[in-house]
Parts: sequence; C-alpha cells; structure tokens
Amino acid sequence: MSGKVYLVGAGPGAPDLLTLRAARLLCEADVVLHDALVHPETLALAARAEKIPVGKRCGRQSSAQRFINKRLVDAARRHRIVVRLKGGDPMLFGRAQEEIAALEKAAIEYEIVPGVTAALAAAAELGTSLTQRGVARSVTFVTPRVGEGEAPSGWARAVAAADTAVLYMAAGEASRVRDALVEAGVAPDMPVALVENASLKDSRSTRATLGEIESLVEARGEGPAVILLGRAFAAAVSQQRFEEFVHAAAVAGR
Amino acid sequence: MSGKVYLVGAGPGAPDLLTLRAARLLCEADVVLHDALVHPETLALAARAEKIPVGKRCGRQSSAQRFINKRLVDAARRHRIVVRLKGGDPMLFGRAQEEIAALEKAAIEYEIVPGVTAALAAAAELGTSLTQRGVARSVTFVTPRVGEGEAPSGWARAVAAADTAVLYMAAGEASRVRDALVEAGVAPDMPVALVENASLKDSRSTRATLGEIESLVEARGEGPAVILLGRAFAAAVSQQRFEEFVHAAAVAGR
Repeated sequence: MSGKVYLVGAGPGAPDLLTLRAARLLCEADVVLHDALVHPETLALAARAEKIPVGKRCGRQSSAQRFINKRLVDAARRHRIVVRLKGGDPMLFGRAQEEIAALEKAAIEYEIVPGVTAALAAAAELGTSLTQRGVARSVTFVTPRVGEGEAPSGWARAVAAADTAVLYMAAGEASRVRDALVEAGVAPDMPVALVENASLKDSRSTRATLGEIESLVEARGEGPAVILLGRAFAAAVSQQRFEEFVHAAAVAGR
Repeated sequence: MSGKVYLVGAGPGAPDLLTLRAARLLCEADVVLHDALVHPETLALAARAEKIPVGKRCGRQSSAQRFINKRLVDAARRHRIVVRLKGGDPMLFGRAQEEIAALEKAAIEYEIVPGVTAALAAAAELGTSLTQRGVARSVTFVTPRVGEGEAPSGWARAVAAADTAVLYMAAGEASRVRDALVEAGVAPDMPVALVENASLKDSRSTRATLGEIESLVEARGEGPAVILLGRAFAAAVSQQRFEEFVHAAAVAGR
C-alpha cells in the first residue's frame, strides 16, 4: 500500500505567497522533495518531514529528472504523505508531466496543488497588468531554453503573436532572445521589463526596450528573473514611478 | 490621510487556494470590495470588514468599472486597510490597470497581491501540464470577449502560434471561437478540454477536439469555465483516466 504524492506549487518566492492548502500539506508531510529555489521559511513549515533537495537548474539533464522520478516513487512506497514542492506552479515549466507519468506507471495516487507563478508576481511588482483593456488581451508564457534532445520550437513566433509575453529562464541568453524576437517580427522598440527575485525583499525591476535588452540583463544579480515584453509596459504608470511621484511630492512638501 | 488599497487575487475558487498573505489581509481589512464569484468561506475570513459586492460579469459596461474605481477611492479615504478582492489573479483579465490608474490619480497607496489563476487550477484538475518536454514550451492565455468600444484583436492568431492555449470567458461563444481558430489555422482535430468550476468540489472536466467543441459547451453547467487547447492534452494520461484505471483495478481485484 503506497502513500499519496502531492505535486505542490511553492509560489514565486515569498513564503506568504504559498497557498493555505500547500501550507497545510507541508505541515502534514512525512517527506518533502523540493526544488533548489524554495524559501527556507517555506521548508520550515514541514517541521516533521524528512526534507530532500532534488533541485536542478532547469533543462540540465533528463537523467536528473529520471532520478527525481525514482526518488518520488520510492518515497511514496515508504511514506503516507509525500510532498513534491516545486517553485511557482507545478504545471508551468515544472516538468510535472514526467513525474506524473512515473507515478501513474507505479500506480501511485497523486494530486496537484496549483501555485502562484512567477509571471504574476512580476506583474504585481511592476504594478502593470498583463492584460489591459484596448491594449492587451493575450498573454504568452514561454521559455527559449532548449532541453537536451529537444528540437527548437516556435517560441519566438508565439511571443510575436501575443500582446504580452513573459519569458521564463531567458535572462541568461538575452542577445539570442533579442535576435530571435526581432527575426520573428517584434519591433526593437518594444517595451521590456526584467524582474529579478519577484515577490522577495530584494526584488529588483528594470525597464528598457527589446533593442536594449542586454543592458537590463547585465545589470541583474544572481537571482531568478523573468523578462516581460509588450505594449502594456509602455501604457501603464508603474508602481516604481508612482513611488517616485510620492517621494517627490513628500520632498516638495518639506 | 488615505488608507492603503490591496488588490488581492482570491485564487481559482477553493477557499484554501488563497495565499497566506491574502488570508492575513482579509483578516485585517476594514473594508472588502469583492467580485461576484469569490467563495463565501473566503469572504468569511474578513470577519470585521464591511463587505461590498462590486461584481459584474466581465466585459459588461465600462461605466460599471468607473463606478468600482470611485468606490475604491472613496473606501481608501474612509478606511485604513481596503482589500479589493478579485477572482484568480488581479493582473490577468482583472481590469486591474483601470483601478490602479484611478488610485494613482487620487494619490492613494496600493499594493498587488498575486493569486492562483484559473488556468493553473484547471491544469491541476486535468492532471495535464501546460508545458511538456518536446510537446509544449509556450502557453497563451487569451479571452475572445470583446469589451464595449474595443476593436477585435488577434487573439486567434496568438492561440494558433502557441503550443498550448487557455481561453478565459470563452465557453459562452464556442462556435464563434471554433470558427475563428480554424480560420487562424488551428486543426479541427486539436485536442480541447473544458474545465468548469476548477478547484471546487463540483468541478467537472470534459475532453474533445476543436471540431467537437460545441458538444463540450452544451454539456456544461452554470459555473465559470476555461477552455484548454493543445497537443499536450492528447499526449498526457489524465487524472480522470488514472482514477478510472484505479477504479477498474479495484473492481477487478474484488
């Protein structure tokens, strides 16, 4: 008789952007297999669980994924409540399907607990809605990263066809991203924002145009980052600019 | 001296898919202006707050949105902690930018609290990842709904260019959606799923192809629904099928 595996989204980074359900499951868990970027305070909720880091930076090797699948099945055979804790949401750039397939093959029960994905935390940080009346009615989430043995896809075409786009795992290859997008028909003056460590205390956001994307990426630190792109980022007054406005008003009022 | 407004995502429906931060803010709120579809248990967290329903079904009238903006500004002038509670995530099909603009114009401080969007709850329900290695690396979220005074957009082109698509507020106009997508080059045999009341106890999901989309929509009830489309929905073994498998195995073992 096997236990049950919960594939749980840990959210974008801030421990209090975890869902109530995820928090409860962590408290009840016997074992937690977690990604590298999960916040220590989030893991601390799993007080009684054995915590096993299985983090790999995305797209590394499929052998690493096979190893995670195996550990997950093994854990379910030994424990009642197994939490597989993934950054963001499990069903978006989380390699969940491979883990689901392994669990189904082993006839192990599972359940998915959705989470807040990084793109939405980044939009919150910027104060810019990804959709806007009359400006943006479609939003594409993509990664330009090509995994081992994977053919390149039409990701740039998907970005070009959408009103707004959020690029995951793209900051490390900015010049290739810019070239591919310009080739796909995106204007070099398209507004772009980069948000690093979205939702965390040391979050930073910067804005530029697609043509200047390398300057954004050079200025970033070591944290995970998403790149946002679209006319929505020109039309909106940003939270940042609002804070500057409040600051300026306070200074003027002295 | 005005209070602060929090634009908060209530998540896809289930009360325990609220974030910890949202739950805390609801507990502390003096007033909560909420959408129509927020769960009563979620609202009950705001025990001491005045609760004001401002729900309109999306895309109705911009005058309704102006009225919400005004109530939000008025509330911030009278109270310390104002929560504007929106279904799903505020920055995705939430008309947040119009509320943000009104708050900025009135020099009222605000903060966005992201939430779990319906698409991710639907993917969890189906047991199908929106991205899959070698199958899907781009996901588009769109609405085919045209608001008052808005020009039709290239939403169908954005769907056609992406590997996976999730259509919000589309179930009410299935035949128009099918025609527009086929016109944009999507194959009539493209796998489609409809998830109604994602994350709630009475959630229902059904699968078909784009050509058969009307049969999906006819079978649905009154709840909010998203339509998911892409090859990912063919490749994956669904949670539903897994449960059928477990059930069949249990029956066979009797």
